[in-house]
Amino acid sequence: MKRQKRFILQENEIPTQWYNIQAEMPHKPQPLLNPQTREPLTAADLAHIFPTACAEQELDTTHPWIDIPEPVLEKYKYYRSTPLVRAYALEEALETPAHIYFKNESVNPLGSHKINSALPQCYYAKMEGTTNVTTETGAGQWGAALSYAAKVFGIEAAVYQVKISMQQKPYRSLMMRTFGAAVTGSPSMSTRAGKDIITQNPTHSGSLGTAISEAIELATTTPNCKYTLGSVLTHVSIHQSIIGLEAEKQMAMTGEYPDTIIACFGGGSNFGGIAFPFMRHIFSGKRHIEFIAAEPDSCPKLTRGEFRYDFGDEAGYTPLLPMYSLGHHFKPANIHAGGLRYHGAGTVVSQLLKDGYMRGVDIPQLESFQAGVIFARTEGIIPAPESSHAIAATIREALRCKETGEEKVILFNLSGHGLIDMTAYDQYLNGDLQNYSLSDEDIRKNLDED
Amino acid sequence: MKRQKRFILQENEIPTQWYNIQAEMPHKPQPLLNPQTREPLTAADLAHIFPTACAEQELDTTHPWIDIPEPVLEKYKYYRSTPLVRAYALEEALETPAHIYFKNESVNPLGSHKINSALPQCYYAKMEGTTNVTTETGAGQWGAALSYAAKVFGIEAAVYQVKISMQQKPYRSLMMRTFGAAVTGSPSMSTRAGKDIITQNPTHSGSLGTAISEAIELATTTPNCKYTLGSVLTHVSIHQSIIGLEAEKQMAMTGEYPDTIIACFGGGSNFGGIAFPFMRHIFSGKRHIEFIAAEPDSCPKLTRGEFRYDFGDEAGYTPLLPMYSLGHHFKPANIHAGGLRYHGAGTVVSQLLKDGYMRGVDIPQLESFQAGVIFARTEGIIPAPESSHAIAATIREALRCKETGEEKVILFNLSGHGLIDMTAYDQYLNGDLQNYSLSDEDIRKNLDED
Repeated sequence: MKRQKRFILQENEIPTQWYNIQAEMPHKPQPLLNPQTREPLTAADLAHIFPTACAEQELDTTHPWIDIPEPVLEKYKYYRSTPLVRAYALEEALETPAHIYFKNESVNPLGSHKINSALPQCYYAKMEGTTNVTTETGAGQWGAALSYAAKVFGIEAAVYQVKISMQQKPYRSLMMRTFGAAVTGSPSMSTRAGKDIITQNPTHSGSLGTAISEAIELATTTPNCKYTLGSVLTHVSIHQSIIGLEAEKQMAMTGEYPDTIIACFGGGSNFGGIAFPFMRHIFSGKRHIEFIAAEPDSCPKLTRGEFRYDFGDEAGYTPLLPMYSLGHHFKPANIHAGGLRYHGAGTVVSQLLKDGYMRGVDIPQLESFQAGVIFARTEGIIPAPESSHAIAATIREALRCKETGEEKVILFNLSGHGLIDMTAYDQYLNGDLQNYSLSDEDIRKNLDED
Repeated sequence: MKRQKRFILQENEIPTQWYNIQAEMPHKPQPLLNPQTREPLTAADLAHIFPTACAEQELDTTHPWIDIPEPVLEKYKYYRSTPLVRAYALEEALETPAHIYFKNESVNPLGSHKINSALPQCYYAKMEGTTNVTTETGAGQWGAALSYAAKVFGIEAAVYQVKISMQQKPYRSLMMRTFGAAVTGSPSMSTRAGKDIITQNPTHSGSLGTAISEAIELATTTPNCKYTLGSVLTHVSIHQSIIGLEAEKQMAMTGEYPDTIIACFGGGSNFGGIAFPFMRHIFSGKRHIEFIAAEPDSCPKLTRGEFRYDFGDEAGYTPLLPMYSLGHHFKPANIHAGGLRYHGAGTVVSQLLKDGYMRGVDIPQLESFQAGVIFARTEGIIPAPESSHAIAATIREALRCKETGEEKVILFNLSGHGLIDMTAYDQYLNGDLQNYSLSDEDIRKNLDED
């Protein structure tokens, strides 16, 4: 059976602009607030910690299209477009009439989609004369990407990695070192925030919230140093829109159009990346697409969180963000999908969820690994534990189609590979992993404490 | 600067035939011999351990072109063509006038070129009714590829992995398990050959030679089980010719033609893969290209070995092969480039070396890692320690061009990525690695003992 499997764009077809969904959303996100004054923040306020261009993009609600700077585009062309792949082998294994496509961001040289935003953030930082950047990382996909991007543009990178992820995935901190970055496990004794956390809880295993606190503190107390981040904020999902913009052109090559778009969900960068460019056709009423964000059931802010103003980090250094949140002191279970261990959803996704444009689904850890192994054995790619949440949600939809006979077209984002996560697969195959479902009381308690 | 960086073939441009260099070599390789009778082996003899089609390809000196079976070609199309990439960032870092291109086999879902031959070997095995395949693996690139290919075609895989490599790279045996294969460290107590080796040397750290002995013993003592291998033999380099055939079309897209082609060298599969299709233009006198095989200086069969009939394995189960060899009892140092720890060169390469069509260069371990880190920090891809030998040889050539001012076009094969080898990079960055150069006495002693 000769059927085209991979769809790749020519270099001159790669999009030259990012999509900024904020300009076209029916209801704009509510403003970010200064926690002291509760006044809306300006781009100038944000530019104290972020590169100025990123701060401006963060609050830009008027320009739907933003030019990709030429040096960033030139770096994109080393690995973009990533392939759009029809998962025939997975379809056959599931005996589903659904057509399953995935956007394969795992073939990026850094192993995940994170490089798409690391490059522009480091480029903008360099252009305004910054010499150092700092950031947090969970599983290390973002940290590795940032470490390389900093090297590309000739600046130094300091990365705070969630302590438990550093222990679970030692190879990824070694990747960062190989690219020349300094890596510290968080919480650490190197910042006031870290010391406070450790003093209160000496065995704290870390979370994205603790690592963000430490990185922001380093950025604000170090001259010529800017903070960067790999998810949650809107400018990151603007950069990641390259994924969905490419996927749209590639879907056109297949002659089909997605009925359902699925991505895993931590802070929202890979979900927004693939979903937002398609969502503009929903706003305009031209298309009907179902958008599904797959989160771990141990960190269910989309399905069970509360929409409120909350901090983005553990220590309360960030602005107040209007978000679905489990409370900024929420301590997620030690699941292997480190990139999904975050208490809140970005402001744009939170507004879209509130307005009914998308929904969340909760995936137990064991179901995610089961899906990862099925995918590995059919498609030959061992997925990142984060991405396996998207695969699990895809399998649920595909099996539903098997029951109903629907020939749905499902598109999901394979955000990264799991070669650095092999110990997690080992534990799964040995039966040593578990689920961490939460009771309503657990969730209520965290929300009330904040 | 807008310059095309990646060159990718459309699905309908992917070659549909492999190239069999044996049909066009000026001097054919000498025959494989039965060690008892010293009579040349026939394809029927080889088919006792190999799939019949592989056995026939092994001895085929008449057909330069062999059709790729449709089901194999269909599987190739999930990841082929791999990109041909111009390494502008590396060129700039080296300040060389040379133009450096690399064929990026590391973006295969299995992380190396090995899948190119694993797929046809498992396909042929399945077609003749085999239910089980067995093999050896060093660093585990081949074992991982075979484990997945066996799963694709619905047969069981048993892999003997070199013990030291299994310890150095635990993630890759976990990959094999994730694909559903059974993995055993070699030498093991599960075969007569393994027991003999352990009895003589209880701390033997294993080599490709010991693992081959064990895998062949398992295949010959198990009903309905065939032996497969990832390098050395000619049918493997026939399958790998897809690399060079694609690269030839991709170089045409660049408007340039390689002056020098470089690949790392263990048994010869990735070297033959990229080099042999280009070499036919040397035989025909149409082109002049320099071919360089980069081997570790701790296992220098090309530059310091002896051309002789020798066994391919430690225990002496294989046919006698006409090869450049360090002696089949040669125990290579524990360098991290496990895939290059093999005592002999394949029969075709040995003949080509003898006839002056190519040359070997010896790379010390530290130089290979230095090259790997330079490549990672410029091109963003952390290379396999094996591939770093090709990068080191490329850097040598590029720096030579810097001295002479030559604008040479250099093409090398990036056979795989090094994400599973991060502990090796860690040791290198910590200054904990060393070189293992050999004295003439060391080499002479091994050759005389055999």
